[in-house]
Formats: sequence, C-alpha cells, structure tokens
Amino acid sequence: MSITVNAYATPAAKAPFEKTTIERRDLKPGDVLIDIKFAGICHSDIHTARDEWGEGTYPLVPGHEIAGIVSEVGSEVTKYRVGDRVGVGCMVDSCRECVNCRAGEEQYCLKGNVGTYGGVLDGRPTDGGYSEKIVVDENYVLGIPEGVGLDEAAPLLCAGITLYSPLKHWGAGPGKKVAIVGLGGLGHMGVKIAAALGAEVTVLSQTLSKEEDGRKFGAQHYYATSDDATFEQLAGSFDLIVNTVSAPLPMEKYLSLLGLNGTLVNVGAPAEPLEVPAFALIPMRRSWAGSMIGGIRETQEMLDFCAEHGLGAEIEVIDASRIDEAYDRVVDSDVRYRFVIDAATFA
Amino acid sequence: MSITVNAYATPAAKAPFEKTTIERRDLKPGDVLIDIKFAGICHSDIHTARDEWGEGTYPLVPGHEIAGIVSEVGSEVTKYRVGDRVGVGCMVDSCRECVNCRAGEEQYCLKGNVGTYGGVLDGRPTDGGYSEKIVVDENYVLGIPEGVGLDEAAPLLCAGITLYSPLKHWGAGPGKKVAIVGLGGLGHMGVKIAAALGAEVTVLSQTLSKEEDGRKFGAQHYYATSDDATFEQLAGSFDLIVNTVSAPLPMEKYLSLLGLNGTLVNVGAPAEPLEVPAFALIPMRRSWAGSMIGGIRETQEMLDFCAEHGLGAEIEVIDASRIDEAYDRVVDSDVRYRFVIDAATFA
Repeated sequence: MSITVNAYATPAAKAPFEKTTIERRDLKPGDVLIDIKFAGICHSDIHTARDEWGEGTYPLVPGHEIAGIVSEVGSEVTKYRVGDRVGVGCMVDSCRECVNCRAGEEQYCLKGNVGTYGGVLDGRPTDGGYSEKIVVDENYVLGIPEGVGLDEAAPLLCAGITLYSPLKHWGAGPGKKVAIVGLGGLGHMGVKIAAALGAEVTVLSQTLSKEEDGRKFGAQHYYATSDDATFEQLAGSFDLIVNTVSAPLPMEKYLSLLGLNGTLVNVGAPAEPLEVPAFALIPMRRSWAGSMIGGIRETQEMLDFCAEHGLGAEIEVIDASRIDEAYDRVVDSDVRYRFVIDAATFA
Repeated sequence: MSITVNAYATPAAKAPFEKTTIERRDLKPGDVLIDIKFAGICHSDIHTARDEWGEGTYPLVPGHEIAGIVSEVGSEVTKYRVGDRVGVGCMVDSCRECVNCRAGEEQYCLKGNVGTYGGVLDGRPTDGGYSEKIVVDENYVLGIPEGVGLDEAAPLLCAGITLYSPLKHWGAGPGKKVAIVGLGGLGHMGVKIAAALGAEVTVLSQTLSKEEDGRKFGAQHYYATSDDATFEQLAGSFDLIVNTVSAPLPMEKYLSLLGLNGTLVNVGAPAEPLEVPAFALIPMRRSWAGSMIGGIRETQEMLDFCAEHGLGAEIEVIDASRIDEAYDRVVDSDVRYRFVIDAATFA
C-alpha cells in the first residue's frame, strides 16, 4: 500500500519539469504525513536536477525546503499532531547510532544521512518537496512556530540553517565583526540572522546594486568586491566571514580580511579545488573552514530563533509551471531572494 | 659606544659561514646583556641565509633559538638579574600598542614585530644568536627554569613554542586525538608537548624509520604516510593535526583524517599555494588553519611547562666551524633532532 500524490519531476538531466505522480509510503508507527504548502527552490536542486554534481537519478523530484501541515500521524508519534505547522529540510533519516548522530549532528552522520531527495530509504529512492504530500519519520520533522509564515519559513529549512549553524558555531554575536560574502538566497538569511544575533554585519557583494536591501536586512556596512580598494580598506577586519558563493573566489584576498584568530567558512562549494597559500593562514592564526546545514536539534533552534526575531526569507512565490524559468533566473542571480513554489499548483 | 662581540655570519646568499665581529648596542635602561651559551639551528635560519624566502640581508648572523646567562642589566630592569638563565626567541621587540601586542600576541603585531635577526631596530639591522653576546629589552627575554639544560632549552625558543602554541590554542589534552605530521626539529617537540598535555598522540611520518624515537617521545601510534592504507585506516580519526612539514603535501588526504570539528594546523609554510577543495572541509565542519610561534607570555608558559615535565629538545651540539655542514644535514633530514651551536666556539 502506498499513497499516490501529484508532483513535479525532471525526467532527465537538463530536461524541463513535468507533472507526474509519485508514491509515498504508508505511515509507519513513527511517521508523519505532511500536506506540503510551500517548497523552496535551492541552488542545489538545480545542480542536482541538471546533474552538475554527477549525483542525479531520474526522474528526479527535488525540494528540501518544505513547509506544510500535518494531516495524519502514525500510532507512535508523540511530537506532532494533525494540524501542526511543520517543515522538512535536507535529510529524512540518518543512522542514529554514530557518534555524530548521537551528538545531534545528523548532517555529519558517518554512514551518510538520507537526503530528502536523491537518497535511498528502505531500498527506495527518496522524492523531495516538489509534491503535494510527504511522509517523514517524526524525528526528522521540524516544528514551524507561529510568527513566521509557512511560505517565508520554507527556505529556512536549508538556507536558514546553512547560515545559522556556522554563525552560532563560530560565535557570531555582540562585539563580533561578521562579513557575509554574496547576497543571494543563502547570504540574505546570513545577514538577517547575524544581525539578530547582535553581530556587526558587513556584506561583501560583487557590486553595490543590492545595498539598500542589505541594510534593510540588518547589515551596517556594504562593500563591492569588484573594487580592489575594499580589500585594502578592510584588511584584518573580521572575526568571521561566511562565504555563500559557490563560484571559486580568490581565497587569499578574502582570508586577508580576517583579523587575529578569524575564520572564513565556506558554505558554498565550488567544484574546483581552491588555491590557498599556507602563509595566508599563518600570520594571524587564521582558519579556513567548511560547514554543512545543521543538525535536527539546531534546525529547530534556528526556527524558534527566527520566529522570535520575526525573520523569514524574502521570497517570490511561483506556480509549479514556472520551475524551469525560476531555475534559469536563479542561475542568473535574478531573484530576490528565494523562489518558493505554491504546492497547491502541483495538483 | 657599543660592545664588539665575535659572531659567525654568512657574507652572501649560499656563501660559507665566516667568523666575524658585530656590534651590540650599549645597554639602555630596560636592556639585558646576555652571554650566549647555546644557539639552535632552525630551518628558517637556512631559508634566510640562502635567501630562499627573498628576505636575506648580508652579512647575516642568524639564530633565534638562544639560551644564555645574564651578565649585565640596565638601570631600570626589574625582571632579571645577573646570573639568571634566560632565552631569546624569534623577536626582540614589537610595537607594544596594537590590539595584538596588548593581548600578549606580539608574534602577530600589526606593525610587524622586530625579528631577532634580519629585522631593523632603532634604524640598525638586528643580528641573531650565532654570536657571543646579545643585548635585548627585558620584555622580550624569557626565563629558563632550572630543570631544563640550556643546551636542550635553546630550541624551545622557536621549535618548542611553534608547537606549544597551536596545541594549547586548539585544546590538545586528555581525550583528544592529536597527530603530528613530520618528526623533525618541530615535530619531535610536538610529540613531547602533546603527550605531556595528555593527548593521545600519533606520528604521521613518511616512513617508519624513526618509530622507536617517536614512541620514546610519547607517541602512542606511528604510521607511514608513504603507505596509502594509512589514510584509509585513519580517516576521520583526529581532533587536531599539526603539520610541521614545509614541503607541499596533498592537503585533501590529510584533511580527510580529521573528525567532526577537527582542525589541521600548518606551522610549516610551503612557498607554493596548496590546492584544497572546499568539500574537503564542509562535510565534517573541518578547519585548515595556520599558526606562528607564540607570544612572549605564552613562550614563558611553555618554558615553565617543559621544565615541569622534564622536556627538552633532542640535540646534537656542534662547534661553530661546522655550521655549513649542519645546514646541509638539516636539509637532508639528517639530524636527530636539532643542531645546537656551542657558543664558546664563536670566540
């Protein structure tokens, strides 16, 4: 037995999206059935759909920024009830036994967690949020508090946690100077969250075209990285830089912006290796680090924090028929700041 | 007025060392005159003497691992008295005003500290420890406690602090798995200090030829990096890796040895940029960092720690006439583990 639901899938790499149906499993005792209301479009959906990371399996139903309402619960579910506002992010299961899972860092599960789409669970490929409903074990479901709309909450499940986790891990807060590189889907959430955490926030963007937005989101400073004077002026300034750009940047220049004990964290991952001289790190005891989404517990903490501070993503809601167009616009950086698909239009 | 002392200098890049005389300044009120007893040979002496870093000024008197006895003090000196056992490391002054100097991190002085040799102080080039005497402001002089010989203490002033500082900064201690890459002048001190701090220490060396030594210094594990099985076996194992090798290593392989939140710290600096993919850092929230010697306060802490734990460098004491030969042997990794020049032979 299973549940047949409408969805949008790409049948092959770079092929247009098509309406289709997929099967959701019948609820196991710990499962929650979610009526999806909104599904964000993440850049990694595009990389996967277009097989740019060599990980595409087709037909592919992407979507790991999911917000909806619980419509049914399994017999042993304790965390959620029918009618609850909930979300699902990048993973729907993990081994639950390794040292990282036990530490609540399921994103770093040593056996590899199960991706919300393109993963394998109980021997079947997983399908993502571009669909009407999804069935997920309650332990991988997040509660979305009142105070943040489901539409603007959807991107928090990936973009939000991807920024919140490193900002918290590396201590963004009062007295800390934090730079966010790139003001896109990830970066704009980084600015909002870092500012709400109390840090002094600087945006480093290619141009000044989005400066007004950046300041509205909470940035106190805004510089164009196309201007070499920026790097002279800001040398040694920052405690923390979060790089959201997945194109290869000249890392040595960006590392030179860190002060003593500063850390530059990549959350964007260029496919190519980056060239970094050790002497870009040694003189100020600098670090170059990476970070990937966040654990389930921390994702809930992020949602609660965002609701408390009235933070949601800046979104443009679209119909499912416009996914291909939206993908092209994301690639062209022509979105302020995240596309969210109205799940009613998957029907 | 100044003090004329015997010294060994190289008159030009790659030229043999020659006996010469240099001038030491008359004591200012805050100065200490030190009768040098031993001067260690650091690999950076060789890089500088041979102008491999493009920073050589000639004639050059290297030496920044200096141990000796105070023979005279200026009128306002309060920290040292005649007869005290003292040392001088890599710097003899700094701006004392920048945020890093005020934090006791003079090694990261924003105006650039004054190197013990090859620096400029009061408009004159500084000369290092390959000489009979040196005059240094008391604030840049370290006390060498009883319990460690002056000969085996000399290399602590650079090799010792270069390892102690990152081991402390990144929390090497009980319950932490620490790897030291390379068992040379730096690495052997890293093993001794990390073991004394209570960490579980692994040596990663090209071959197993020094395994017996490594275990004697306190390593519990010893692996050959020439064997690819090492990288499979140790994947994800370490909390901290300190890389003492200044040749370019395949960083991605070494980073894969870090567990969650692990850090690889370079204290060796290859001239060439290293290629590192961001996805070598992202999956386990890994960091790649750099570290450079340590501050004055921390250097004193290190000397006290080493005396308390009976740690000195493993040394081969030589006469000044053998400096050129020693340099060649250091380059060939043919020293266990540090050459120290008997300063009596500068006369």
